[in-house]
Amino acid sequence: MASKPSPDLEVFPNPQTQHDYTIRITIPEFTCLCPKTGQPDFAELLIEYIPDQLCLELKALKLYIVSYREQGAFHEDVSNQILAHLVAATQPRFMRLTADFNVRGGIYTQIVAEQRSPNWQAGNPVQLS
Amino acid sequence: MASKPSPDLEVFPNPQTQHDYTIRITIPEFTCLCPKTGQPDFAELLIEYIPDQLCLELKALKLYIVSYREQGAFHEDVSNQILAHLVAATQPRFMRLTADFNVRGGIYTQIVAEQRSPNWQAGNPVQLS
Amino acid sequence: MASKPSPDLEVFPNPQTQHDYTIRITIPEFTCLCPKTGQPDFAELLIEYIPDQLCLELKALKLYIVSYREQGAFHEDVSNQILAHLVAATQPRFMRLTADFNVRGGIYTQIVAEQRSPNWQAGNPVQLS
Amino acid sequence: MASKPSPDLEVFPNPQTQHDYTIRITIPEFTCLCPKTGQPDFAELLIEYIPDQLCLELKALKLYIVSYREQGAFHEDVSNQILAHLVAATQPRFMRLTADFNVRGGIYTQIVAEQRSPNWQAGNPVQLS
Amino acid sequence: MASKPSPDLEVFPNPQTQHDYTIRITIPEFTCLCPKTGQPDFAELLIEYIPDQLCLELKALKLYIVSYREQGAFHEDVSNQILAHLVAATQPRFMRLTADFNVRGGIYTQIVAEQRSPNWQAGNPVQLS
Amino acid sequence: MASKPSPDLEVFPNPQTQHDYTIRITIPEFTCLCPKTGQPDFAELLIEYIPDQLCLELKALKLYIVSYREQGAFHEDVSNQILAHLVAATQPRFMRLTADFNVRGGIYTQIVAEQRSPNWQAGNPVQLS
Amino acid sequence: MASKPSPDLEVFPNPQTQHDYTIRITIPEFTCLCPKTGQPDFAELLIEYIPDQLCLELKALKLYIVSYREQGAFHEDVSNQILAHLVAATQPRFMRLTADFNVRGGIYTQIVAEQRSPNWQAGNPVQLS
Amino acid sequence: MASKPSPDLEVFPNPQTQHDYTIRITIPEFTCLCPKTGQPDFAELLIEYIPDQLCLELKALKLYIVSYREQGAFHEDVSNQILAHLVAATQPRFMRLTADFNVRGGIYTQIVAEQRSPNWQAGNPVQLS
Amino acid sequence: MASKPSPDLEVFPNPQTQHDYTIRITIPEFTCLCPKTGQPDFAELLIEYIPDQLCLELKALKLYIVSYREQGAFHEDVSNQILAHLVAATQPRFMRLTADFNVRGGIYTQIVAEQRSPNWQAGNPVQLS
Amino acid sequence: MASKPSPDLEVFPNPQTQHDYTIRITIPEFTCLCPKTGQPDFAELLIEYIPDQLCLELKALKLYIVSYREQGAFHEDVSNQILAHLVAATQPRFMRLTADFNVRGGIYTQIVAEQRSPNWQAGNPVQLS
Repeated sequence: MASKPSPDLEVFPNPQTQHDYTIRITIPEFTCLCPKTGQPDFAELLIEYIPDQLCLELKALKLYIVSYREQGAFHEDVSNQILAHLVAATQPRFMRLTADFNVRGGIYTQIVAEQRSPNWQAGNPVQLS
Repeated sequence: MASKPSPDLEVFPNPQTQHDYTIRITIPEFTCLCPKTGQPDFAELLIEYIPDQLCLELKALKLYIVSYREQGAFHEDVSNQILAHLVAATQPRFMRLTADFNVRGGIYTQIVAEQRSPNWQAGNPVQLS
Repeated sequence: MASKPSPDLEVFPNPQTQHDYTIRITIPEFTCLCPKTGQPDFAELLIEYIPDQLCLELKALKLYIVSYREQGAFHEDVSNQILAHLVAATQPRFMRLTADFNVRGGIYTQIVAEQRSPNWQAGNPVQLS
Repeated sequence: MASKPSPDLEVFPNPQTQHDYTIRITIPEFTCLCPKTGQPDFAELLIEYIPDQLCLELKALKLYIVSYREQGAFHEDVSNQILAHLVAATQPRFMRLTADFNVRGGIYTQIVAEQRSPNWQAGNPVQLS
Repeated sequence: MASKPSPDLEVFPNPQTQHDYTIRITIPEFTCLCPKTGQPDFAELLIEYIPDQLCLELKALKLYIVSYREQGAFHEDVSNQILAHLVAATQPRFMRLTADFNVRGGIYTQIVAEQRSPNWQAGNPVQLS
Repeated sequence: MASKPSPDLEVFPNPQTQHDYTIRITIPEFTCLCPKTGQPDFAELLIEYIPDQLCLELKALKLYIVSYREQGAFHEDVSNQILAHLVAATQPRFMRLTADFNVRGGIYTQIVAEQRSPNWQAGNPVQLS
Repeated sequence: MASKPSPDLEVFPNPQTQHDYTIRITIPEFTCLCPKTGQPDFAELLIEYIPDQLCLELKALKLYIVSYREQGAFHEDVSNQILAHLVAATQPRFMRLTADFNVRGGIYTQIVAEQRSPNWQAGNPVQLS
Repeated sequence: MASKPSPDLEVFPNPQTQHDYTIRITIPEFTCLCPKTGQPDFAELLIEYIPDQLCLELKALKLYIVSYREQGAFHEDVSNQILAHLVAATQPRFMRLTADFNVRGGIYTQIVAEQRSPNWQAGNPVQLS
Repeated sequence: MASKPSPDLEVFPNPQTQHDYTIRITIPEFTCLCPKTGQPDFAELLIEYIPDQLCLELKALKLYIVSYREQGAFHEDVSNQILAHLVAATQPRFMRLTADFNVRGGIYTQIVAEQRSPNWQAGNPVQLS
Repeated sequence: MASKPSPDLEVFPNPQTQHDYTIRITIPEFTCLCPKTGQPDFAELLIEYIPDQLCLELKALKLYIVSYREQGAFHEDVSNQILAHLVAATQPRFMRLTADFNVRGGIYTQIVAEQRSPNWQAGNPVQLS
């Protein structure tokens, strides 16, 4: 998928870099075009990440998401591409993208992709009863 | 269960083979026939897989699912058979099929089967708090 | 609890013995009698099992469940007894029974019991993100 | 918290001591008094336990719960005290108490406490896919 | 973010220090101001902690939460700051704060941060089936 | 349907006969037998009535409901019969019975029947906005 | 739409013809074929009727519904046709059919049609508060 | 039912007497005692009223509700009695009380009673589409 | 609002014109642009109509809806305009449009507009109990 | 309640004055202060109106709502006051305000007030089956 120029993602310094913590961003209004039919596709995106030095600025993130409105995009491709853009912009310790696409032809599709920083070690999460 | 010829499943190259990622496909409209009574059975299928070199093409998948409409099929048998066909077509790193059958005789049945590639090592999933 | 003769459970050969897979059977219509008061008790049963060589035949299972309709049965006792009968009939790799009893005296009770074959090793389940 | 005499808890022999199994008891109608204001507090209790030689008799349990109706009790204190009483009465392999208190001052509180027998080793639970 | 003086948090002695247990506090009525626009933000807070020697007093906690009503606060910043204040006041074995902010610009944000005492070892939680 | 003798329904004097008011009684545990197959049927009953001089006593009502446990009964028939019995016992100003039968053969059935006293005039209900 | 011969609907005498009462039948498993594409369509049907002299026999109704499995049928057409068949078979005082079709092309369609007997006068329903 | 002295209900002047408007008050924490068994009963109360010159003061209302904690009370009786007390205190244009009692003996009971001022004419509510 | 040329709506003959019946069409994927900010707006549309001689063809309806993707449109304006277009195309006996817009600035907006044919008389709907 | 000066509400011309239509505005983020305790209160507001010549501008409406943040306000008073302000600004054919206040002292309160223009006649709404 040829990557069309997209608005710049913006970042700001993570105010707390000492401990791992999680940021979850839910975007119910993603829309792009089906490359085969030209008809619109719709999805809800969930971004979950553990920031390192940088956090995603939400207003710029929204404009970035809107920039897909007129792009043709296959489900698997666009999900991995968005993750790659977000990782490149924020260099997080860990990031996961979940894209829930609306039903097409009676079939629902969800893509979940993630990347972790090579220098980062996932902690042992405390499971509370 | 004698396997009736089914429409060919189609695949396309996985656009991102470097990292494991998950594709979930929900198909609420599976129907086949009960081999004993000839009456229709209904199920919702969930396919979850980590692609290797190939991804499932959704339009062909739908025709494959429709091809069961006039087949007699026992719950346990048909679930394992569909998984086998999907694995043969896509050679995934991992695939799981969940089939939720509608109530019959006051009883609800669900079948969950999975296969993993012998060359593939399941990663250590990051659990976010 | 003196075990009253119950209808025979029936089985059929597991069509896929090579890999572990899970069968879930939900039965919302279990009823027996309270041994103290003689009044009816009601429960929803969930049977989850990994078959070995044999699968539970559902029509006979239903008749087996109906056979409790006029039996007196304590919650803990009858749950363990049903599990024992099902295990004896199918010799599964693993089986779990969950019995959710309706409220009595403002109190809800659930019993969960399980058995695993001594020759069977539980696999390492793949956790998908 | 000075422990006011409470009705005796009653037990009966566990009908199946060979394998660990779980009993869950939900009691939506717990009420006591706030020690500061004298006003009623309300909670839903969940008792989860793996019995050893003894099981909780439900009718006596209900009377025990009702005995808190006129007692003053702080959330953290009463939750740990009830657990201690139930453990003393049944000597279970494992027991967990969850107390969900109704909103007070716009704030909801939940207490979760558990104890395990020193002689008991928690099994490796089978995770079904 | 310059920390404005906030009302004192209050604590009381943990009535049961022998075993780890969990306290969950849900506060649906957090509100502060957006530092950029001056407009109100709203969030639901969840505090989960394993107390050591001290427990959070709820009435003082509520006043502390109300003290943010006229403060400007970024999502990531204020969540980590509240956690730091609560940890400083109670010195818990473990504490986690989850802040679910209301939608802004079509985007929902959640922050989850946690801290554990260096002297504390997380137990092996019993997973009941 | 030949009416098998059933336990006596019991009544008590309506404590407030001056104004119409509504009593709703929900019974989730009705079970009888299918006259064709002898297999159990299950239903949830809802009784709604405006009492005149008499109210239904609930303990006797429960025994009356239990008396159907071994009776064969068609859906339409048994619903109208129960309503007739309840009306005969209480002579209400108005009574409605709703019977929601569990799924059979993939089909769910509900019966709603009502009777009103010839001497009674339905009021004009106040619709609150 | 040319009407393909369908299995006979069967009826039985209404056991209570004196008062109007309502029968509701929910059928979640209707499927037919799209006349344009030949692909399957799915719907949930709700039949609501006030019987006069005849009631619908459910087993024959199910076979009637199954007879649409291989028929091509437009939404508006088939809904009105089914209603016409059911009315012809039972001559009810009132009948309403609601057909909820599964999403196609991102659009959900529901058809609601009804007929009433010319000799029948709808009663004044009692609205309970 | 002998009426035990209860705390005084308090009222304040209705700030808007020109137009009818509705006040709904939900109280999930009503509890009294069963006169037969002495065991606690629980209910959720809903008060809906159109005030005339007076409104119910909520703090006094809560104390009034708490005053039933040690009273024996039959469902039908106590519901009508509470309504009578509230009407006597506020002289509303219209008032309705709904009492949803917790399950007892597998049976759920709801009482709905209402009164309207003889001088008041219910308006014609506007039904918005 | 200047009306940009939109794809033609298409119609087909109503297969059953003798009786009034209702067609409901739900479209969860409406999107247009905010005329002030140029940013996307999203809504779910519900069309409910009683056809006269013509029914809406769904494929053309979908293209019509997609034609708003790049149009600027105020909520109140676009809702009334879509209704006007649909009424002009189908000349229905009755039509209602409900547009549920996604939250903007913490505020959710819904518009409901309807038109009825001057020659048409709304029937007296049968209310089933 | 002394009315503190509030930001001006703004209006724009109703784009469709020929037919009645409904606008619903949901505002989940209303907060004011309790006049007795000075502590914050929270409510969700629903505004439903049939515009005449003017519609509410949403951005100004939001600022108007925010202006209550530091005002003391009783539930019944503030609900009627907001309705009066909105009616004064828009002179609608009909307007209804519903205010759902968060729980206080275990009690939930809802206020519903409405006004209609003296020159306006409520239409006969079409009830679709």
